[in-house]
Formats: sequence, structure tokens, C-alpha cells
Amino acid sequence: MQLLREKILKEGRKLEGNILKVDSFLNHQIDIELLNEIGKEFKKRFQDENVTKILTLEASGIAIAVIAAQYFNVPVVFAKKTESKNLDKEVYEGSVYSYTKAQHYKIRVSKRYISKDDNILIIDDFLANGQAILGLKEIVDAANANLVGVGIVIEKGFQKGGSLLREAGINIESLAIIDSLEEDEITFRNN
Amino acid sequence: MQLLREKILKEGRKLEGNILKVDSFLNHQIDIELLNEIGKEFKKRFQDENVTKILTLEASGIAIAVIAAQYFNVPVVFAKKTESKNLDKEVYEGSVYSYTKAQHYKIRVSKRYISKDDNILIIDDFLANGQAILGLKEIVDAANANLVGVGIVIEKGFQKGGSLLREAGINIESLAIIDSLEEDEITFRNN
Repeated sequence: MQLLREKILKEGRKLEGNILKVDSFLNHQIDIELLNEIGKEFKKRFQDENVTKILTLEASGIAIAVIAAQYFNVPVVFAKKTESKNLDKEVYEGSVYSYTKAQHYKIRVSKRYISKDDNILIIDDFLANGQAILGLKEIVDAANANLVGVGIVIEKGFQKGGSLLREAGINIESLAIIDSLEEDEITFRNN
Repeated sequence: MQLLREKILKEGRKLEGNILKVDSFLNHQIDIELLNEIGKEFKKRFQDENVTKILTLEASGIAIAVIAAQYFNVPVVFAKKTESKNLDKEVYEGSVYSYTKAQHYKIRVSKRYISKDDNILIIDDFLANGQAILGLKEIVDAANANLVGVGIVIEKGFQKGGSLLREAGINIESLAIIDSLEEDEITFRNN
């Protein structure tokens, strides 16, 4: 997606450790116009999938998911990372391994909000090691729902998540794939 | 806001301890159509305020803030609750007291994303004790920005946050104010 690549080149900041900061438009401050273009692009790419619900993970996936949901006319459900006394006791759980914290944590969705009749589109901001997506897929599988695809805004193509998930047969669409952040340059894959 | 009150009466679930669960449409599963009506209503109520940025708090404020932002044509910034190595070192901090956890926690916004020239509208899902709003106001004040108003979806009128903030001269608009959750009934204030 050309507009997104241009935005990443213009405003993305490279930090040590292969970190790309896009917090001026994607995950701290949010550019609503860009998000609408991203939403339209996800609709275009998944238009044949009869999506009934969009699933994401708090917190930074929420903005992208709700703006995109307007083009699909479906509700959003976001999985919760924290145990809350307000969350239903009956939940589907997924497990996510955090490389930065070197530990697993649980994510949860109330059983009320995913059913076996749902065609689920997962949306998230970044794909790196693929752990968050695998945790969300666990929840979809536990509900016997149908995972029709995964929409990612920025994929770090030099990390293993993308190939891991594609080899598992998951239909992934990443709007920008970065193949390298080395040598002060951001190199995109032609996709 | 009539549509919102009807939705609360239809889908809200009362739990012990004056808890109102609205996770079927507001803070777990999200009803995008309703959120658009909420966004339009906030625009109507704050149309004369020349809002330049909407500020909210992760996670459940994000969906409401980004949908509303479409009617104001401004960016959203969400304050972060967790210390992240990806967050800038230069931040404005606010302190929020959590009654459920009986302790203070910090919330943070990068100094890049609020300036003294901003007219800030704070948006959040619930107003109860007002602590989250006070923490966000601390951030606005630290940036020397101008707080033009606070937009709340559901105010618990029987808790002290609303009067606390109104007495401090803050321009609050709550789309539904609940005066009581007693005796198996949800009683709204006429506002």
C-alpha cells in the first residue's frame, strides 16, 4: 500500500534493536485519515470472505480494527490482556509468548462474543514473531469459529512470524512488509 | 442521548457492587454503528470548541475516541498505562488512583504529541470517581495545552467524579448519566 509506505518513510523512526517507531500515526498518536485508507484496503483484500466479526488485541489493535469495521459493517471484539473482575468468567483463552518479557501471558475473550457461526478477520498493527496472532487464533479455534484471514498493517519480513503463519495455511495480508531496517534504510518487500 | 439509554436498558447487565456491564457494545465487543452516533453527538456538543486533538486512555477509550475523531477531523492520542521501552523518554505524566487496586499508577504521553497550542477534548467510556480524567488533565496541564472539554459515554451519577470535575470548572458532557443501579433498576438522570 503505497500511501502507507510513504508515511513510514516520512515519519517512521528507527531505533536500536530493529525497532521501528510509528507512534506519530499508528500506535500512540493516530492519524484517522490514514486509518480510513487502511480500513478500505483491508475491505478490498478481504471482500470475498463474508467476514462477520473483527477480532483484535488491546490496546494498539483497537483503533485500526474499529475504523476498518466500518467498511465491513461488523462488530469488533478485542481480546483483553489483563484479568479484570468485570470480564465474564466464561472465556476463551489464548496464550501469547512475549520475547521482550521472556514469558507467556494469557489473552481472553468472553464466550458471549464469538460463536461457531462467525467468520473472523483478525486485525493487528504489527506482525513480528507472530505470537499475538497465534494467541488470537487459539481463541478462534476454541470457539470453533472460522478464521478467514489476518490483516496486518506493518509486517517485519525479517522476523519469522509471517512465514510461520503462511506455512500454517493462514490467509495473511500485510499492507507493508519491511525486509530490512539495516544500514539506516527501510527496505520494503514488493508486495 | 436516547439511543444510548435504550441500548443500556436493553443490553446492560447489572452486577454486584454497582457495576454496570456494557461489554456487548462498548468495551469488549464494540457496536460500530452506535459508536458513530456517539461520535456525532460529541461533535454536536463540542462543535464550538475548535478542538485540535482528542486525548484518551488505553484501552477502552480508544475505540470511542477514534470514531469520534472522524467528525472533528483531528488526530487522537492515547495515554499509555504501561512503561514500554518503545515510548519516548520525554513524556508528560499523570497519576491515576485506582480504587479497585488501592494504588496509584502512572499514565504517559510523549511530549511530541501534545503542544501548548492544542485545544484538547478528553474522551472516555466511563466516569465514576473521576480519577482517570484527573490524570489525563494533569498531562494536558503539564503540556500547557488548553482543555476545552471532557466527553463521557456513561457517567455514574451516584459516584463523586462528575461533581468533583464540574466544581473544578471542567466542561463535561456525559451522554448518559445513571443516578442509581439499586433495586434491579437502572435510573437515568434527565440530562
